[in-house]
Amino acid sequence: MGEAGTVMEHAKFEPVAEGGVTLPTGFRAGGVHCGLKKNGHNDLGAIVCDVPAAAAAVYTTNKFQAAPLLVTRDSLAQEGRLRAVLVNSGNANACTGRQGEEDARAMRAGLAQALGIPAHQVAVASTGVIGQPLNMAAIRSGIGLLTERLGDGASGLTAFNEAIMTTDLVRKLAGARVTVEGRTVTIAGVAKGAGMIHPNMATMLGFITTDAAIAPSALQELLRETADVTFNMITVDGDTSTNDMVLAMASGLAGHAELTRGHPDYPAFAAGFRYVCEELAKAIARDGEGATKLMEVLVTGAVSDASARVIARTIAGSSLVKSALFGADANWGRIIAAVGRAGEPVNTDTVDIRLGDIVTLEQSRPVPFDEEAALAYLKGDTVRIRVDLNMGPGRATAWGCDLTYEYVRINADYRT
Amino acid sequence: MGEAGTVMEHAKFEPVAEGGVTLPTGFRAGGVHCGLKKNGHNDLGAIVCDVPAAAAAVYTTNKFQAAPLLVTRDSLAQEGRLRAVLVNSGNANACTGRQGEEDARAMRAGLAQALGIPAHQVAVASTGVIGQPLNMAAIRSGIGLLTERLGDGASGLTAFNEAIMTTDLVRKLAGARVTVEGRTVTIAGVAKGAGMIHPNMATMLGFITTDAAIAPSALQELLRETADVTFNMITVDGDTSTNDMVLAMASGLAGHAELTRGHPDYPAFAAGFRYVCEELAKAIARDGEGATKLMEVLVTGAVSDASARVIARTIAGSSLVKSALFGADANWGRIIAAVGRAGEPVNTDTVDIRLGDIVTLEQSRPVPFDEEAALAYLKGDTVRIRVDLNMGPGRATAWGCDLTYEYVRINADYRT
Repeated sequence: MGEAGTVMEHAKFEPVAEGGVTLPTGFRAGGVHCGLKKNGHNDLGAIVCDVPAAAAAVYTTNKFQAAPLLVTRDSLAQEGRLRAVLVNSGNANACTGRQGEEDARAMRAGLAQALGIPAHQVAVASTGVIGQPLNMAAIRSGIGLLTERLGDGASGLTAFNEAIMTTDLVRKLAGARVTVEGRTVTIAGVAKGAGMIHPNMATMLGFITTDAAIAPSALQELLRETADVTFNMITVDGDTSTNDMVLAMASGLAGHAELTRGHPDYPAFAAGFRYVCEELAKAIARDGEGATKLMEVLVTGAVSDASARVIARTIAGSSLVKSALFGADANWGRIIAAVGRAGEPVNTDTVDIRLGDIVTLEQSRPVPFDEEAALAYLKGDTVRIRVDLNMGPGRATAWGCDLTYEYVRINADYRT
Repeated sequence: MGEAGTVMEHAKFEPVAEGGVTLPTGFRAGGVHCGLKKNGHNDLGAIVCDVPAAAAAVYTTNKFQAAPLLVTRDSLAQEGRLRAVLVNSGNANACTGRQGEEDARAMRAGLAQALGIPAHQVAVASTGVIGQPLNMAAIRSGIGLLTERLGDGASGLTAFNEAIMTTDLVRKLAGARVTVEGRTVTIAGVAKGAGMIHPNMATMLGFITTDAAIAPSALQELLRETADVTFNMITVDGDTSTNDMVLAMASGLAGHAELTRGHPDYPAFAAGFRYVCEELAKAIARDGEGATKLMEVLVTGAVSDASARVIARTIAGSSLVKSALFGADANWGRIIAAVGRAGEPVNTDTVDIRLGDIVTLEQSRPVPFDEEAALAYLKGDTVRIRVDLNMGPGRATAWGCDLTYEYVRINADYRT
């Protein structure tokens, strides 16, 4: 994990390779094909908790928020607790007007009825094409089948994963275990998203589950601050979707006293939570539409963390930097051009740029480097760009991917 | 020119098809190959005026401004008049430190000496790779040859055009004639630029000449306000270069009284000037790296022109909209997603979207349209996207191009 992981290395958590949202105590998941996707893959999924879980969510900043987000907000506003989330792919239910809102409410009511729980304990999410009415008959019949197929093992998880994927090539899972009051607490997450991805909740869905005991307000605060340094630091193509959200649910079944900022084990929990979010965020960037590699951009020496964030995201989002990465071209000129147009304070005489361990610019002066070594490094599946502005204590990490022929191919005929 | 041209249609000017910077009285141009480009094409060019011309310039907003920009600023600060501009391609002389500044000054001094004029009457510009020292021996010998080859006809213009091109596929010329005090005034321009192009003077060079009589300060004001609605409204890939500038020179040889805002023929001159700038800007967008078509985005009904500008540029710069255009996909969902993430006031219930004359969204509700007709329209070489927010009087036009395999190919191995 390199530099980006330093914050986490100070707090104790154990990564869980086989992480999945059914891992924490109290959660089941499942998925079915109800008819929204033409390819026959699962397109309707749910995560269900045995008890009302403390819940929190962050949403897209796009002004056109899709109907399911409005309905999920409404659910969370009631008591901040959820028993379930219902997700469909194949149709975003966005820009669908009043009918779209009614459909999202009907999805919520349908799952609530099938599970015998109050409607406000259900969240809904959708992803897919914008502006087309949902096939509600398909969803209604799917809900019946789905509730029969919920499972807490690998099969439920696999079925759910397939149900939330659109152009994703790989499933994105992460998990961590931490110790709270001597008990094992598990945190796990799944995510989808490969295109229309940009800081501020762009076409991605993330679902985090944990058996930790934590109040909804504390979970909301943790999710917001964690999303800012993980999900909101990835960019695939600069586009921000109408539908994205990350939802966290905490069952409390680990049985310890409620976590607050003052709890001695809060730092470990927060570190595990951040690890899960960061792994999911990086998985989304690496699986960016058409991507062949993950780009990690670390900016240090900025005047503030906020300034470092803007610069890191500008570099990670630059079409020219992304194209150069695809071509394994050590074109640091494009990196410094991105630094210069980010609109943040920069001393044009003190910038250092490194590609991996290869120094290409020092105090804004080009440093001769071994082109062969740089080519070999850039051909790898992870490229770390490090920019030190040498001005202040601000630092941030952003993640992106290369821009490839395949990105263009996917997006030139997505809808047809 | 459609809607975008309405402002100009009220003032009289006559487009000149064979426009070029040598057209206005008093200007010569030329270009030679001095050894900076590997392909043997011209890489050093100049425009020279018989008299000290009133001059004005606008520059990139990138914090890393290349050395030639600093030197040109210095020249213009002296008396606001220029006799010549020297341009090289193949090397941007950017991020080259103190040596780069000395080299830019040496370029200026070299041409001044060859022409027998003061150094501060010479501007310099460079475009090409960042971070490599200029081959000054090549440039010095090139200047000698160049000054022997200046011409006021088509050959000088053609040679100059080649000298400023990098990844450009076509030369970009525009011209207009207007009448001032009964005399014919000619305005002409050339530009280069195909990649690293984004609002605010991104990797592009533009040179406008005219034989109008106008004071440097009035020319500067006109250039700034015109650049804001033309050159600063194009985007190819969202990247802003370190080197871009647009330079205007007015010889005054048309022999009328100095143009000021109060002059009865100022509107005609300003309209012709804007026409030339807009044609060059559109030519740059249409020749965007890898582009197969021009995208023109007109936003109306915004709360202000400034707000309309941001929204229009966000749409024109969206990778997803650009990819959809390449695939001739009438994916208005991506357009509305771009509107929603632009960060400007939007009423999510009142948006209309048209592709050419095809209405796809009305009052934010999808309108069924003929997919075949849309496909045929989107396959054309110019696509007009019109978004009406129905909120206020703000309007703006932005230009861009589609995102293609070829863009990726060009930028994956530009440097190597």
